[in-house]
Amino acid sequence: MIERIAILGTGLLGTSVGLALRAAGFRGAITGWNRGAEGGQRALSMGAVDTLAAEPLQAARESQVVLLAVPIYATLDWMERLAPVMGPEHLVTDVGSTKAQITAAAGRLFNTPERAGFLPGHPMAGKERGGAALGEANLFRGAVWLFTDDPGWKRSTHSANLAQDWRQWVEAMGSKTIDIDAARHDELVGWVSHLPQFVATALSALLEEEVGDAPELKDVGGRALREMTRLGASPYSMWRDIAYTNTEAVKRSLHALEQRLAYLRENLRTPELRDEFEQANRFRRDQ
Amino acid sequence: MIERIAILGTGLLGTSVGLALRAAGFRGAITGWNRGAEGGQRALSMGAVDTLAAEPLQAARESQVVLLAVPIYATLDWMERLAPVMGPEHLVTDVGSTKAQITAAAGRLFNTPERAGFLPGHPMAGKERGGAALGEANLFRGAVWLFTDDPGWKRSTHSANLAQDWRQWVEAMGSKTIDIDAARHDELVGWVSHLPQFVATALSALLEEEVGDAPELKDVGGRALREMTRLGASPYSMWRDIAYTNTEAVKRSLHALEQRLAYLRENLRTPELRDEFEQANRFRRDQ
Repeated sequence: MIERIAILGTGLLGTSVGLALRAAGFRGAITGWNRGAEGGQRALSMGAVDTLAAEPLQAARESQVVLLAVPIYATLDWMERLAPVMGPEHLVTDVGSTKAQITAAAGRLFNTPERAGFLPGHPMAGKERGGAALGEANLFRGAVWLFTDDPGWKRSTHSANLAQDWRQWVEAMGSKTIDIDAARHDELVGWVSHLPQFVATALSALLEEEVGDAPELKDVGGRALREMTRLGASPYSMWRDIAYTNTEAVKRSLHALEQRLAYLRENLRTPELRDEFEQANRFRRDQ
Repeated sequence: MIERIAILGTGLLGTSVGLALRAAGFRGAITGWNRGAEGGQRALSMGAVDTLAAEPLQAARESQVVLLAVPIYATLDWMERLAPVMGPEHLVTDVGSTKAQITAAAGRLFNTPERAGFLPGHPMAGKERGGAALGEANLFRGAVWLFTDDPGWKRSTHSANLAQDWRQWVEAMGSKTIDIDAARHDELVGWVSHLPQFVATALSALLEEEVGDAPELKDVGGRALREMTRLGASPYSMWRDIAYTNTEAVKRSLHALEQRLAYLRENLRTPELRDEFEQANRFRRDQ
């Protein structure tokens, strides 16, 4: 049923979605637009999009589904610009990493019978570096793709059908879809996604200070150190909007970890250390 | 020159050394001993050792090089037992993860012209689980193998030659050898090895408490979460001796990370967050 898709933002995620759709057998048209010309050209040459649009709003109007694959504040900006020019024959969806503000805007600007539908989405896939060149068709295989749909929304039949169809394409790309409340989403990713990133950033920054003057000694850490600091390569530009739009949840999770580390530090020579290791072992055993 | 090796402790490391020696072309005899019969039998069936010794002290006396591949306190115990029964025709070496106490004992009990030599070693390789069954010939390939030799020691010519030969076998197993002062070793591994482990343990234990009741939601974290918590599977039994023998360095590194996390938490919406990300990026760029 979906035959025309516009991808606004052909960075890592937008490009990967285009490639994954093709790999999953999508035969319709995919138009791309990117703020920087180079990323657009790269996505085009990789076959992630068929054409590049000169005018993104027009490309959006001419498609059935618009995928916003840009940072969170840019997504919110696009929502404001798209809402007045799209209608009930359209669906807009996104890949933003925090969902409370985007879902609130979706309820305010979209999702009435007279307006375009907006399906807030969040694929739990990515890399520590962005850009079209790193895009790949398998990025979403085995990943979870979260949706924070509000059951109270009254979409047009047309956009509701497009939303159903989009969910099927997401599954065809290899992801498992899970529906979750937007507030719960932000709390959950605060724990399982944002906390690990900020820990890796703090650990990498600290180690740069402590052993950065002896680069040959970094080899000493081996695989464990490489893994624990890989996310340290993540650029600020990818995380600034997350820090701003999920501040309280991230604060809570960081504070809880600080307390946990202090507890462990105070118990290096007591039986409580065994309990901490066993609790950690349980987390891994269930995975 | 080395033709007879005894490996005391055929767990992950002892078994891997046996396999790696064979893969590197060692044609001499390798005798193994393990406290638990199953681990010994497994190492034997994997070809990591040729024979299992019933009497470890006798096996040590009949070999030229004894590799202690047991936890730190067990290594210290073996040093006490071996020193009186070995002579200048022998070399003892180890794989213990902290080196201050072992190196001090090596100076006290070994390394005179009349006694066996002791070369304190530490391969920076391992897995989050132990046991002979996980042993592999490639474990040390690309890893750093640290030695905390004391230049003041006066070894017999015989044991000095064995030490040189052992270093060459370590390189033949694929490791890069680095010499480092024992105190500096423990400080360094406190940062690049012990801190990452204790962070992974604290993070995993915290997440088990926060999201452990919703196991399906653990999938949400994806690769980043799996990497940041993989070491959470490490057993207490492998880390207890490290916590006891490198307590002050681990305390310092944990405390420094707590402060770094607090700083990051207080700056989620300030330009300082950018500086932290850039500092972390530098650590990864140099690797």
